[in-house]
This record gives sequence, C-alpha cells and structure tokens, in this order.
Amino acid sequence: MREIRNEQLKLSAFHDQLDNGLDVYVIPREGFKQTYAMFSTKYGSIDREFVVPGESEPTIVPDGIAHFLEHKMFEQENGEDVFKTFARYGAMSNAFTSFDTTAYLFSSTDFLDENLTTLLNYVQEPFFTDENVEKEKGIIEQEIRMYDDDPNWRVYFNLIEGMYQVHPIAIDIAGTVETIQQIDKDTLYKCYNTFYHPSNMSVVVVGDCDPAHVHALIRENQAGKKFQRQPEIERIFPDEPTPVRRARHEERMLISMPKLQFGYKDMSRPTGKDMIINEYATSIGLEALIGKSSALFNKMYEEGIVDKRFGWSYDATPRFAHSLFGGNSKDPDRVLQVVEAAFAEALQNGISEADFNRARNKMIGQMVSTLDSARAIARHFTTYTFRNADFFDIIDVMENLTLEQVNQRLREHLVPEMLTVSIVLPK
Amino acid sequence: MREIRNEQLKLSAFHDQLDNGLDVYVIPREGFKQTYAMFSTKYGSIDREFVVPGESEPTIVPDGIAHFLEHKMFEQENGEDVFKTFARYGAMSNAFTSFDTTAYLFSSTDFLDENLTTLLNYVQEPFFTDENVEKEKGIIEQEIRMYDDDPNWRVYFNLIEGMYQVHPIAIDIAGTVETIQQIDKDTLYKCYNTFYHPSNMSVVVVGDCDPAHVHALIRENQAGKKFQRQPEIERIFPDEPTPVRRARHEERMLISMPKLQFGYKDMSRPTGKDMIINEYATSIGLEALIGKSSALFNKMYEEGIVDKRFGWSYDATPRFAHSLFGGNSKDPDRVLQVVEAAFAEALQNGISEADFNRARNKMIGQMVSTLDSARAIARHFTTYTFRNADFFDIIDVMENLTLEQVNQRLREHLVPEMLTVSIVLPK
Repeated sequence: MREIRNEQLKLSAFHDQLDNGLDVYVIPREGFKQTYAMFSTKYGSIDREFVVPGESEPTIVPDGIAHFLEHKMFEQENGEDVFKTFARYGAMSNAFTSFDTTAYLFSSTDFLDENLTTLLNYVQEPFFTDENVEKEKGIIEQEIRMYDDDPNWRVYFNLIEGMYQVHPIAIDIAGTVETIQQIDKDTLYKCYNTFYHPSNMSVVVVGDCDPAHVHALIRENQAGKKFQRQPEIERIFPDEPTPVRRARHEERMLISMPKLQFGYKDMSRPTGKDMIINEYATSIGLEALIGKSSALFNKMYEEGIVDKRFGWSYDATPRFAHSLFGGNSKDPDRVLQVVEAAFAEALQNGISEADFNRARNKMIGQMVSTLDSARAIARHFTTYTFRNADFFDIIDVMENLTLEQVNQRLREHLVPEMLTVSIVLPK
Repeated sequence: MREIRNEQLKLSAFHDQLDNGLDVYVIPREGFKQTYAMFSTKYGSIDREFVVPGESEPTIVPDGIAHFLEHKMFEQENGEDVFKTFARYGAMSNAFTSFDTTAYLFSSTDFLDENLTTLLNYVQEPFFTDENVEKEKGIIEQEIRMYDDDPNWRVYFNLIEGMYQVHPIAIDIAGTVETIQQIDKDTLYKCYNTFYHPSNMSVVVVGDCDPAHVHALIRENQAGKKFQRQPEIERIFPDEPTPVRRARHEERMLISMPKLQFGYKDMSRPTGKDMIINEYATSIGLEALIGKSSALFNKMYEEGIVDKRFGWSYDATPRFAHSLFGGNSKDPDRVLQVVEAAFAEALQNGISEADFNRARNKMIGQMVSTLDSARAIARHFTTYTFRNADFFDIIDVMENLTLEQVNQRLREHLVPEMLTVSIVLPK
C-alpha cells in the first residue's frame, strides 16, 4: 500500500496494484457520513474495435455493446436482485456507461464490508444466456427510444455527431435499435473477458474508512478468484480529420422553447499533467468569457435570450476534446451572433487580468467544494486516473496558470472553423 | 404555492398542501448536480398503538411492522422492479424506517419528472398477498439476524433499551424474529391505510429544479388518485417514567476491541422553535465539552483510550430525547471515569466563553456546509417539518444562543442519575 499524498489539500490516496492487475485506491475522509465506492472499467462506447489479447486480428463489435454489458451485469445466476442486496445493507447503487468508462457504484453509511463484497462479486460474476440477452434487447430498445425522445439528449448528441467525422464518440452510447439486435451472448462474453479483466479496472473508495482494512478486504476477495495476468488491450481508432463534420444541424421536436448547443472541436492531445494544464487553461478562459459572472452572460441574460441554466463545459481526454455551450433560448441565432462577436473580440484583445483572476478563483472554489463530496471525489479521481493524470493536481495547476497561458489557449481553441451548432426547434 | 423564505440563508421552500392533505415542499438549489426527492410518512417503529380513523377502539400492532411495510412497498402488482425503473432513468433509490418516519427516496441528475412519477406511484400502490408477506418474513428474519450480529448496532440498541422502561423506542426497529411472524396481509393494509394516507405524508424535493413545474406534476399525479380526507390519527403512548431502566449493560461478542456507548435520557419536551433552541443549546454544550477540539477529547485521545471516531449526538423529538456518546475503546471504564469527572466539573463551573464560541462556530459551519447537499437538506427538512419545526431556523437559533442558556441546558441534561452505559466486550 503506497500513500499518494497531496500536502496542499491534506489528502491522501492509498494505492495498491494487486497481483491480477487491479488498481485499488482508498481515499479516507474523516467525518464523511457517506462512503462512495466505484468499480470501473476503462471501457466505453468508443471501444468498438480492438485486438483481443492472444488473438492477432482486430474485432469490431456492435454499437452500444458496452452499455448493453452494463445492463446485463445485474443479472445473477442465483436470481439475486443486486439492488435489493445493496438496499438491505442501507446502500444506494447504480451503474453508468460513458464514452470511455463503465462504472458500478454504491454509496452507503454503514456495512461497508458487505457492500464492497457485493460490488466486487456481482461485477465479476457475469451470467449471460441466449434468453436473458434476448429479453434485454426489448428493455434497451425502450431506453434508446426514451433518449431519442428527450430533446436535451438530442440537441447534445446532434452536436457531437456534427463535430466528428469518423470517431466512434459520434456513436450513441446505447447504440441504435438496429445495432443492439446484432448483440449475442458470445460477443458479450468476448467484450467482458477483454475489458473486465482486473488489469483494465480500478476500485476507488472514498469516505470515513480505514485504508488498510479496505485494502485487505479487496485483496482477499480478489485472491479467491482466478485471473491470469493479461497484456495491455490494443484499441484501434480511426484517424479523425481536423474539420468538423457539419457546421450546423437543426431538428424539430414537441417542445415549447428552442434548445441550443454549440461547441468547438479541439485537436490538441496533451497527456498526463499537460492534459490538466490544457484543460484548466481552457476552462478558466471559458469561465471568464461566458461564465455566470461574465459581461457576456449578463448581457445575454438581460436581453432575455438565455436563462440561468445556460452553461458551458470543456471535455478533454486522450481520445477527443471539445467545448460545449448551451441551454434554452427563445432566439438561438441571436445568442450565436452575440457569442461569436464576443469571442472574436476576446481572440483579438485577450481576457483581462481581472476577469482571469475572478474566473480562476471561482473555479478553485468549486474544486475545493468538490472535495467535500465522496461521490465527486470518487468520480473525478477515477476519470483522471484512467486518463493517466492526477486529480489532486488540479488546484495546484490552476494556481500556477498565467493570464498569457489562458489567452494562448483561447486562441488555439476558439477557431471559428471548428465551431458546430445544434438546435432543436418547436414543431 | 406559498414561498417560505429565509433571507439570511437566501433559501426558499415552496410549499403547497394538496386537497388530499399531502404536504409538498420544493427547495430549489441552483447549480446542484443532483436532485434528491423524499416521499415520507410520519410513521415509524414507535407507532405500535393507535386508533384507526373511523374506529373507536385502539389497535396494537406487532413490533417491526412499519419496517416490514417499507420492505413490501417494493412489491408491485405488475411485477415491476422499482429499483431497476429508477436505474433506467439514472436515479439511485432507497428507503428507510426510523423510530418515527418511513421514507422513500431517490437521487438523480436527469429525468426528474419520470423519477418523481415512479416514486409517487410505487409508494401509493401497495400490493400485499398472503404469499408475498410469508416470503418476506424469511428475508426480514435474515436482516434481523444481521443486525443482531452487528456489534455497532448491539451496543447502540442495548443503550436505548437501557434508557427507556416502557416507551416503544426500545423496540428494535425491525422487530424480532417472533413478532414479525404475527404480521399478515390484513394488518399491513390496516397500517398502510392509516399511516400512508397523504394527510400523514410529505414530499420534499431539493435540487436545481423549477418549483412551479414540480408542484404541478405532483398535483396532477395526486388528482388522478382517490383519497378521502382523513382526520388526525390518534396515537397512544405509555407514560414513560423519569428514571432509566438500567444504569449499565454488558454483552460479549466476537470483536477485537471493546465498544462503548453511553448517554443521558432527557425528559424535556419543548415544541416548535423551542425544541430547536433546546436541541442546539444542548448540542453546542456537548460539542464544547467533548467534541473533537475539546480538552476532554484530546486528553482521552492522547491517553490512547479513544480513537478519532469517538463521537457524540443529541436526538430531541416530541416523543423522546437523549444524548449518545461512544466509539471503540481499549478501556471503556477509564473513558467513563474521565468523562464523568469532566462533566461534573463542567456542571460546577460551566463551559468557558471561548469554548462556547469555538463550538458554536464549528456547528454553524457544519450546518452551512449541510446546505450544499441536496440529500442533507431533504432529510433534515423532512425531519423538522414532521416535528413541527423549521429546519431553516437552526442557524439563526445558534447565533442567538447565549453562554448562560448553554450552561443552564447542560445542568438540566447531564444529570448523573440519568446516565446509561452499554458496553460490548470481546469474547
């Protein structure tokens, strides 16, 4: 057990890599009422082509299979209802699939040993049959249709589709009604055996707990299971060209107020700590430009063309990166006009020292308050670990960023040709 | 819809009482990622004797029936798995039964309408059959045995049993293996129809949501269901004598380190805002005396007889009140000796102005950070509303408390004859 200490934050993560390759991190937080545990695999909707360890030819799997697999993990051979088992021990449980991660999690206030054991065991005991796979297709089809009918999801996913030409991020996480029909028991086991190997997974536990005890419990649990060491999985991604796929997309749905999302595709791919520097230089710049206390946001708010839920985000990963802006607006084109003018001006003159400091302080404050939430720590820590970066570095990185770095990053990122727009209008 | 505004905290609860008597509170918190909703009934393990509205004779029900009922609510006539329905909409769900409340809840980041509808409908669609009631007995029996085997639960419940002579708080929340055998379908429906009437329930929703929208959704959902107005339920409680039942209880279990819990029974029963004044005068006094930064705690910690998880709490309700202290200790009797001496000295001289201010500031800080958590707000708000008090008053109450009030309260509360001790020792 190795202590990864951050003196500034007075936080430690206790790390151990088990013989089977599983990375276990325990982050003790004294006084926390809830403990949050995440058992995650570096496997998401973008992993559609890969070489199975031991094989030589690449495998291409049907779109949506990572999400399908997540659903099927709740099926237990003994008929046990995993959700009820957690509930019996006072825990709330769930799972999710994203572009690059599938995570199984619970939060609890007591019975940590029992809940951790439940978590480790159900995720490591797949039970796929022809019958239960067929049955799941109907359930997932419903879920796909539900997302298809959700205007917030549509305006978001139309934007992602508009940004990327060949990258699998543009595949809907759940796949389509057609692609999930191609999924069968054998393909599920193939994906499971490849990506749910402990060497491709991590356990992160955050809460008022004893690291040595948690590590011992997980080590013992894993020692009782047979896993061969597995080499790194070779993942195959197409070369994404720089230009966006389309500049603008409109769709009409049964809504009362139009929805707007727009964003800039970003081809920079720094790694490790540089990824965090890049991410937060961009984020501080965007917060200064269009965050809730910016002149731009307030101008739009006063004009009545955005409401308080208008927001921005910047996602940077080793495989893709882009900014997103949006919300409801009675006049999406007016928003675009105002924003594009303000961004053009910012590229010319840069943001001011005062705006830079305000935005940086706000983002540091948000990050500090994140450290009060076991859930937020577990999720962020997992995300950054999978991306070979250290979540605890973020505040230090922000404190050391300069105005010049931020303005430089805005000039690199806010390239007018890289803008994509997605609008959902009332029918 | 009426706005209950707290100017100091800049928080509002939007309240509405529906025609069927259901109290609905929506507390909007801009920027919160999670929305937390609780559908609760003022009904817990202490409600063992009551007059069913419309009847004249009191009914006495088997111990543990409120908790049994909570379990059975997850059974749906259409065979639907409620946990899975929530999971499909990205929500985590759970339920719990306490001495005086049964609550059903979820937390979600999206699909609030769907999740709220699921919550309202499953709790209002009981489905008890002779078969499913019998089957549940085995499951609950397991749960009871699990708690019986849990040294933390045992040391706690032995203490509660030691404090109260006849009050039903001393009944284990889940009942016993014997009492749950007496539960049948008809008794469950009788309790359900009495205590799950909307006029005995509340819905509290906290998160970044629109109060008018949430109120409209709940109002419409309830309008589609048929409930007759119901008069107040008459609850019958025995007169609890002042003295504790026993001064000390010891039990031996398979543990490595002894566990100690002790506390003072409190016969004061102020109501409304006075209840909060009483509660926080006591709490600030106890934090000053034995909280983590007190001289007493540090003395015990240095001596190695307590660890950092040693803690205290003070529970004050209209039906019972007591303080609790405890944790693991290699020498429980030495802890009691040190604490009793320190408490006796404090009763003589009172706590100091400096200790009072330190404790008050810490508790105000904790309460402020509570307001960052949708879960904490929903739970506390429900608790205080059911006790006819206003959760939002607490910070103001603390700011206006005086040292004299706190010392007066400590003298009333820390009466040596009202002390009860519970110890679990290694076998």
